[in-house]
Amino acid sequence: MQNERPLILVSNDDGITAWGIRTLVEAVAAIGEVVVVAPNKPQSGMGHAITIGHPLRLNKSKVFGEDVLAYECSGTPADCIKLARHYVLHDRTPDLIVSGINHGSNSSISVLYSGTMSAAMEGAIEGLPSIGFSLCDFSHKADFSHTIEYVQTIVREALIQGMPEGIALNVNIPAKSEEPIKGIRICRQTKGHWAEEFEERTDPYNKTYFWLTGKFVNQDKGQDTDEWALSQNYISIVPCQADLTAHHLLGTLNQWNLK
Amino acid sequence: MQNERPLILVSNDDGITAWGIRTLVEAVAAIGEVVVVAPNKPQSGMGHAITIGHPLRLNKSKVFGEDVLAYECSGTPADCIKLARHYVLHDRTPDLIVSGINHGSNSSISVLYSGTMSAAMEGAIEGLPSIGFSLCDFSHKADFSHTIEYVQTIVREALIQGMPEGIALNVNIPAKSEEPIKGIRICRQTKGHWAEEFEERTDPYNKTYFWLTGKFVNQDKGQDTDEWALSQNYISIVPCQADLTAHHLLGTLNQWNLK
Repeated sequence: MQNERPLILVSNDDGITAWGIRTLVEAVAAIGEVVVVAPNKPQSGMGHAITIGHPLRLNKSKVFGEDVLAYECSGTPADCIKLARHYVLHDRTPDLIVSGINHGSNSSISVLYSGTMSAAMEGAIEGLPSIGFSLCDFSHKADFSHTIEYVQTIVREALIQGMPEGIALNVNIPAKSEEPIKGIRICRQTKGHWAEEFEERTDPYNKTYFWLTGKFVNQDKGQDTDEWALSQNYISIVPCQADLTAHHLLGTLNQWNLK
Repeated sequence: MQNERPLILVSNDDGITAWGIRTLVEAVAAIGEVVVVAPNKPQSGMGHAITIGHPLRLNKSKVFGEDVLAYECSGTPADCIKLARHYVLHDRTPDLIVSGINHGSNSSISVLYSGTMSAAMEGAIEGLPSIGFSLCDFSHKADFSHTIEYVQTIVREALIQGMPEGIALNVNIPAKSEEPIKGIRICRQTKGHWAEEFEERTDPYNKTYFWLTGKFVNQDKGQDTDEWALSQNYISIVPCQADLTAHHLLGTLNQWNLK
């Protein structure tokens, strides 16, 4: 890597025209050769969905100008990474996969619902260093200007240090405010859930429909958590892995009477 | 619970008319009061997707006869559990959530892509005992007859023992064969990934499209894994939790130069 620029694959879940991915491409183009494969429409909340049962489309895109090889894809963020790896890049292996910058937080349990982190996790599952970036500001007019230096610091350090195989970093960056960002914290995922409420409405044809709304409930006040770090205006980094096994419960379950 | 039948909420990802959910309803109706909220169309591979940005529909269904309260929902498996909890059941808390029986295995890394397990994980995140069942047979004509006794054994034991909060069981059942099932094993998730290949085709309008295909690659020969158990004709049970944090790497990452 000393003699050539690292190959950085970029995706997201807000779609290829979102401001967040524009910022991310700008940040990492200063560090390496960039290839983008991103959804052609918003895919927020897609979790680790993949497209089976219908075919995928992939088209070249010029949204990042002539110098960046970019494709828009009809599928989910996980599909984008799979297509990038096995079709677009096929015999080249990216040195790093980055996803985002998401318009909105993906801290705590949101990591599971997040299309942004799904792209990063897909990379990690395939053994590639992967990082998902999110800005804690859902606004479509969100100001991403303060994120660039932090994205570059984290990307450079990940390339220097190398990442343990199978790991994706979940990076959340506080919204721009008058208070300066205090720094970067390595955290664990906060224990929490979304307390849902459904707004019931009636359509013009007199049929009922529902809007999903909800409020995050933090069940975990630990000062080693991502929610705590963000509440103190730190950037949070949670190293994530794809093994869901509750290893500490294997013994308990072996006591069950299942013979 | 001694004096009344447990309330069991049923969902799946193959859709409300699939054979797998029919078998699951039949199995658990012998144990408790059953309420079904399931997708109105197949949602395989939906991972932990939720529906935001467009509204959800929910309609009563009579596919399980007059005695089972059932709804079909336009959303994902995770949406179904959220709507069931907060709208259909609103002031009643299910004693158990079961999802499946999936047409096809959800062992190893497939747990992350699985809509079946997403419904169960959604229950676990909300603090409810939840179990996802899958049959290792993708055929639409799969024979589910041997699964009923095992589903009932596991459901009864989960109700008796209670499950640790935040845990969903990922149960995979070998396909019906002449070899008898050897028993039930508590396992950890196998380390593996899907090696993708994309089949490139040209449509009648001369445009390219892709079908996602792939082959599971097992990177883990441990005899304590779900893949090993299934290969030996055991039923596998993996206790799953929603914390993705790679806790063992927090120290390593704290050595990075991120100041």
